[in-house]
Amino acid sequence: MNYLTDEKLVIVGAAGMIGSNMAQTAIMMGLTPNICLYDPYGPALEGVAEELLHCGFEGLNLTFTTDVAEALKDAKYIVNSGGAARKAGMTREDLLKGNAAIAEEFGKNVKKYCPDVKHIVVIFNPADITGLITLLYAGVKPSCVSTLAALDSTRLRAELSKYLKVSPDAVVNTRTYGGHGEQMAVFASTATVDGKPLTEIIGTETLPEKDWEDLKVRVIQGGKNIIDLRGRSSFQSPAYVSIEMIAAAMGGKPFRWPAGAYVNNSKFSHIMMATETSISKDGVKVTPIKGTPAEMAELEKSYEHLCALRDEVIAMGVMPPIAEWSKLNPYLDEKTAE
Amino acid sequence: MNYLTDEKLVIVGAAGMIGSNMAQTAIMMGLTPNICLYDPYGPALEGVAEELLHCGFEGLNLTFTTDVAEALKDAKYIVNSGGAARKAGMTREDLLKGNAAIAEEFGKNVKKYCPDVKHIVVIFNPADITGLITLLYAGVKPSCVSTLAALDSTRLRAELSKYLKVSPDAVVNTRTYGGHGEQMAVFASTATVDGKPLTEIIGTETLPEKDWEDLKVRVIQGGKNIIDLRGRSSFQSPAYVSIEMIAAAMGGKPFRWPAGAYVNNSKFSHIMMATETSISKDGVKVTPIKGTPAEMAELEKSYEHLCALRDEVIAMGVMPPIAEWSKLNPYLDEKTAE
Repeated sequence: MNYLTDEKLVIVGAAGMIGSNMAQTAIMMGLTPNICLYDPYGPALEGVAEELLHCGFEGLNLTFTTDVAEALKDAKYIVNSGGAARKAGMTREDLLKGNAAIAEEFGKNVKKYCPDVKHIVVIFNPADITGLITLLYAGVKPSCVSTLAALDSTRLRAELSKYLKVSPDAVVNTRTYGGHGEQMAVFASTATVDGKPLTEIIGTETLPEKDWEDLKVRVIQGGKNIIDLRGRSSFQSPAYVSIEMIAAAMGGKPFRWPAGAYVNNSKFSHIMMATETSISKDGVKVTPIKGTPAEMAELEKSYEHLCALRDEVIAMGVMPPIAEWSKLNPYLDEKTAE
Repeated sequence: MNYLTDEKLVIVGAAGMIGSNMAQTAIMMGLTPNICLYDPYGPALEGVAEELLHCGFEGLNLTFTTDVAEALKDAKYIVNSGGAARKAGMTREDLLKGNAAIAEEFGKNVKKYCPDVKHIVVIFNPADITGLITLLYAGVKPSCVSTLAALDSTRLRAELSKYLKVSPDAVVNTRTYGGHGEQMAVFASTATVDGKPLTEIIGTETLPEKDWEDLKVRVIQGGKNIIDLRGRSSFQSPAYVSIEMIAAAMGGKPFRWPAGAYVNNSKFSHIMMATETSISKDGVKVTPIKGTPAEMAELEKSYEHLCALRDEVIAMGVMPPIAEWSKLNPYLDEKTAE
């Protein structure tokens, strides 16, 4: 097997549905022979490792551990799905606090055990916040951390494909930026359907304005819809897409969707959000977002939602005030591209 | 993407954990762009299809349906994980009867809707029986149907690797034949560890006889162990390995493990069992099993267990007596290779 690299990839949260799928996906994609599965929950972690052993893969050096120090030692790439799921009786704030604390601990562990990590993809909710906290405490460059932010865009492609009864391939370059779900900014102007700009289709008989609005609601509810249909949260798509991200960071195929990245320029300040990027061996690089003035205004609004969420986390005491960030991570005051 | 074929692959039981993993695995392996997901349970089926759409795959023509006629129309390759799981209060016989009936209906549907199918991999339990029933009622050649029988062999490799503290790659050509689990015949003489025959290691300090016996028990309980550890039946390994089988049948990489196939020669008669095979575009072909006299005797015993199970199913009225098989499938009296 030709691997992209032989450097160590760590799957954090490998005992879960997303993490175990990530591991299988990473092996099948031929990213690296050196894959370490980490999860604090030992029995299920061992079960996942056993399953992967039973696949009979060749040329694979699969390890697993519940010891985070051992897991992160020499790690060069990490994909982290290790957040907590919302449990009965938990408020949204409980979940936010819990996952923020998990991200803080993870960031500190990265700093301690693998400060030379090349790239980290964070996917546990809310990824804009958990990714930001990871970046803050890991002390690494913003190019080292990206978050999963593609699913709104892939769901937009899927919904357009279904509504217009065309192949998903006929729907090109669907893009949402900023926040996730209800907070996302949909950029219709980037997309084409069978080569025709989507903006020229919206508001016609082919896709009346009302139906377009309904379609966007279905995109927002894409994750909830999976729960309704399957009786479990989506795991195949977040796992697959996040492994595509880390593959790009290893020098593999370019990643084709928006990614969450740290943005700090004249328009957006000290925030992690879904943006246009390129992901390569140099990490994630923010690239310009193009859109109509109305779309840019929507993005501005989405950004403000994210700032409010970030400030809420700061107020909760989980993250220090922005003015103190540079003490933890001096890179965070540096300007990113416009 | 370079696909192995553009012929239609149907995943039966696609709403389940195994089936949904099969679909993702088949897509990632680049088997064919034309994949149809079938399951009688519509909501979860749609959920799986949605998840796969949300992965953003390119060049994929993914369809899904709860209509078996639509699913099987023009199907050239089928992987079937669509059995029922054992439910509380169900006896072993209930499960056997239920899955035998499902296999019968499936076989009849193949005959009705896709008699030109090129290959079918059956994996639902007990696969030796459900595969045999499928073959009987589908009326296709024995080379058209194989069953998943590799996991005992991959588990043997995994257990030896763990016990001897060597890479799984150092353990070569582990083989079990005949029945599954407790009924399997372990062929130690085929395997080497770091180039050394396993038979020369068993009974030495490196692997005392008692430990080898215990190790075989762990292989037998490999599936149960996954349930104990993960709280769910194994799904990643059966899905992955069965997709490797259908890939070989499409002309892809040779399949490296034993497979279940119909055997009817001077030693074994009218039976589906784990055997040495080659799987190619011509389907599954039984090839000779080599072993020590003691191993061949163990295989004989394993075969007798399988015959007893087959005869039990015949006695249950689910399958006709062997004398009547040729009326349903004239190929079943033909001799297969020794």
